Amino acid sequence: MVANMTEDQLLVLVIKYLKEAKRGALQQLLEELHPYDVAQIYIGLPDKHHHKFITFLTPDQVADLIQELDSELQIEILHKLGIERSSKVMNLMDNDDLADLLNELSVDRIQEFLDVMKKEDSQHIQSLMSYPADSAGGLMTNQFVWIHADQTVRQAVEKLKTYASFSENIYYLYVINAEKKLVGVVSYRDLLIADIDVQIEELMFSRVVSVHVNDDQEDVAQTIERYDFIAVPVVDDHNKLLGIITVDDAIDVFIREANEDIERLSAVGRDIDFNTKAITASIRRLPWLVLLLFIGLLSGSIISGFEATLDQVVALIFFMPMIAGMTGNTGTQSLAVVVRGIVTADVDRATVVKLILRELRVGLIIGLTCGILISLIAYFWQDQNIYLGFVVGASLLITLVVGTLAGTMIPLMLHRFGIDPAVASGPLITTINDIFSLMIYFGIATAFLSQLTAL
Amino acid sequence: MVANMTEDQLLVLVIKYLKEAKRGALQQLLEELHPYDVAQIYIGLPDKHHHKFITFLTPDQVADLIQELDSELQIEILHKLGIERSSKVMNLMDNDDLADLLNELSVDRIQEFLDVMKKEDSQHIQSLMSYPADSAGGLMTNQFVWIHADQTVRQAVEKLKTYASFSENIYYLYVINAEKKLVGVVSYRDLLIADIDVQIEELMFSRVVSVHVNDDQEDVAQTIERYDFIAVPVVDDHNKLLGIITVDDAIDVFIREANEDIERLSAVGRDIDFNTKAITASIRRLPWLVLLLFIGLLSGSIISGFEATLDQVVALIFFMPMIAGMTGNTGTQSLAVVVRGIVTADVDRATVVKLILRELRVGLIIGLTCGILISLIAYFWQDQNIYLGFVVGASLLITLVVGTLAGTMIPLMLHRFGIDPAVASGPLITTINDIFSLMIYFGIATAFLSQLTAL
Repeated sequence: MVANMTEDQLLVLVIKYLKEAKRGALQQLLEELHPYDVAQIYIGLPDKHHHKFITFLTPDQVADLIQELDSELQIEILHKLGIERSSKVMNLMDNDDLADLLNELSVDRIQEFLDVMKKEDSQHIQSLMSYPADSAGGLMTNQFVWIHADQTVRQAVEKLKTYASFSENIYYLYVINAEKKLVGVVSYRDLLIADIDVQIEELMFSRVVSVHVNDDQEDVAQTIERYDFIAVPVVDDHNKLLGIITVDDAIDVFIREANEDIERLSAVGRDIDFNTKAITASIRRLPWLVLLLFIGLLSGSIISGFEATLDQVVALIFFMPMIAGMTGNTGTQSLAVVVRGIVTADVDRATVVKLILRELRVGLIIGLTCGILISLIAYFWQDQNIYLGFVVGASLLITLVVGTLAGTMIPLMLHRFGIDPAVASGPLITTINDIFSLMIYFGIATAFLSQLTAL
Repeated sequence: MVANMTEDQLLVLVIKYLKEAKRGALQQLLEELHPYDVAQIYIGLPDKHHHKFITFLTPDQVADLIQELDSELQIEILHKLGIERSSKVMNLMDNDDLADLLNELSVDRIQEFLDVMKKEDSQHIQSLMSYPADSAGGLMTNQFVWIHADQTVRQAVEKLKTYASFSENIYYLYVINAEKKLVGVVSYRDLLIADIDVQIEELMFSRVVSVHVNDDQEDVAQTIERYDFIAVPVVDDHNKLLGIITVDDAIDVFIREANEDIERLSAVGRDIDFNTKAITASIRRLPWLVLLLFIGLLSGSIISGFEATLDQVVALIFFMPMIAGMTGNTGTQSLAVVVRGIVTADVDRATVVKLILRELRVGLIIGLTCGILISLIAYFWQDQNIYLGFVVGASLLITLVVGTLAGTMIPLMLHRFGIDPAVASGPLITTINDIFSLMIYFGIATAFLSQLTAL
């Protein structure tokens, strides 16, 4: 029956159970649903039912639910549960989700939770919080099952039965030796189709790919993507198995990284989404805008330096927005290529040299094409002034080459020196290219001033 | 031994086996490696060894290898193998990878392959190619195992053993009824820990989440991400099971979508990476640049329309790049927020209204802040001309509000009308905002011309 119910029908049923205080029926219903769907029900439920709903669930169900919610709703639920039941739920959560949750709480609040926990649990949580959030340690969970190489398939299956409740999302068994070092991996499928008395050693895949606990989250996600893994084991310096990172975390990393790249290209302050308040969004966007305002004034002061030239050839102004804009555009294009390339390719010296030479050629090709085109346009638009056509065309050629190279080299240099590439934002490169282009354009125009004014 | 060898050591060993013509040893070595590592070896191998390497592998190993390579290298391998052996390899490939490969080949070439295949296989491949590449049908593979609800765990395990060779990357068993309709799903873990004579019906999870064969790839990826799935089943109108889509494909979709968003923001033509040739990259980038060149000239002609105003107050030019640049920057920021928001949120009418009102407020806040700031700067920089300060400040306020709204509404409108949002690229919005800002700025300046020139 539950199998074919819509979300709305489920919601009505849940409210009915809550009103009739049918706790057992509610628990059984939720057992049939995915945690994501339970979360949708919680979000869809009128506020007045939230408290009763939470208290009707088993601690396991609350742990599953809480993992699907935003930090705001998570904290709301902890509040409704009280310290003691919250600690119980926390111990049932996946470690990586728990670490994320704890990062949202104050130190005092965390201490309150730790105080009511068993010593073993609280020590465990403290060690978990010691890893940086963007490292493998911050992503890993301890919800994995290990086995010794000399044990049999039968023993492995027995062990899995014992850990059934929390091994739900696990698809490999990790094999360790007497020193707890990782020596192999065996899939559930291998166990299923193997003879029950075969030793694990004979089944296992021994060239295990693992990540180090201090590895950056991007490298971890890349490893999972390259090998099409469902999970990757995390080890310390001595190859001891500490935890695993699952593919859903890799997906989250890829989504997060893509958002960062886009923030970078558009100079949006971090973390603005559809729900951010106007004042918060403004405060996050303003620092960049104010900086760019001052850089924009620099362009203005460059123009004012060429006032004499402008006074004599007013037509030069008409091409100014086009030249500045085009230089900015080509720079942004190159920047986008570099920013995305860095995500998937390894950036060594040879790649950098090859890329810069490639972009130099690109700059020349698009510069020549657009330069010739604009020369012709300028010539016919401005009373067949051949020198104006030359000045505008030559300027565009040079600024497009410079703009392309700037859009390539600035982010590469920042990447090389390990500076936060957020600095290499699209608008910043656009604005820098504005200044370059104005200097080149008016510089060339001034050099040919006598020819320009002669006609 | 293989377990701890570096990539270079492996390469040396492979070359040794090739030189000594130890075919069996090579096949055994590769069996111990992940397909990704085999691909790295193939790429690292000097060209002269490629042909021998390919012919030494089992068809299964070639199929695994080919799935890890770029289309260019894939086609090279098919060429080395010849039509007949290629068709054999093709039949061993995952369907989704095979469909991708076939998309790279000419119709004539595909027909050659189909001609030498068994009728059943060629029909299968033809039906596969009938789905659009960006739909669920284009992503799905038929490498899944199904079972009837009234069969037992024992029968399921027997079936898995039969299909062992190709069920390697499968973690669920799909349950169908007599009409081949999808009625449930059961995990390997459930099979492992269940009693051997239990009926599948008792184990299975019956609220199966599935996607429709015509669903867009983004929706499929979102479903996998939301539910933390390893795979999602694909069904037709009648809920008949057609295939599955695995999480690694979802990751590829997320990466591809992020790249598209960035191409959109930066007006890079599609598919430019570190390896694209300069001439190809230029041809892909040029159409946008030429379009933007003409739009840039529009700005120029607007300025030329205000020549009289400019002649009288030259100082107006100094603030022109700043005003145009700032309007473009704020528009790009808003665009980035919308483009990323569309990926994760549902865009209904209420969201759109809320978002536009929010961005209006954002525009006002940043407009007032930057406007007041620039009024003061203009006043002190340009000989304490209070009217110039007013004109520049008021213009910036208005252009920032307009720019913010343009950056929000243009992509939302395109999204609503189902137009390819690639049109709403960052540089396009920047250029449109350029034109808006110049008209507003010079319009206000002209209105206050008598005051500006009075001082």
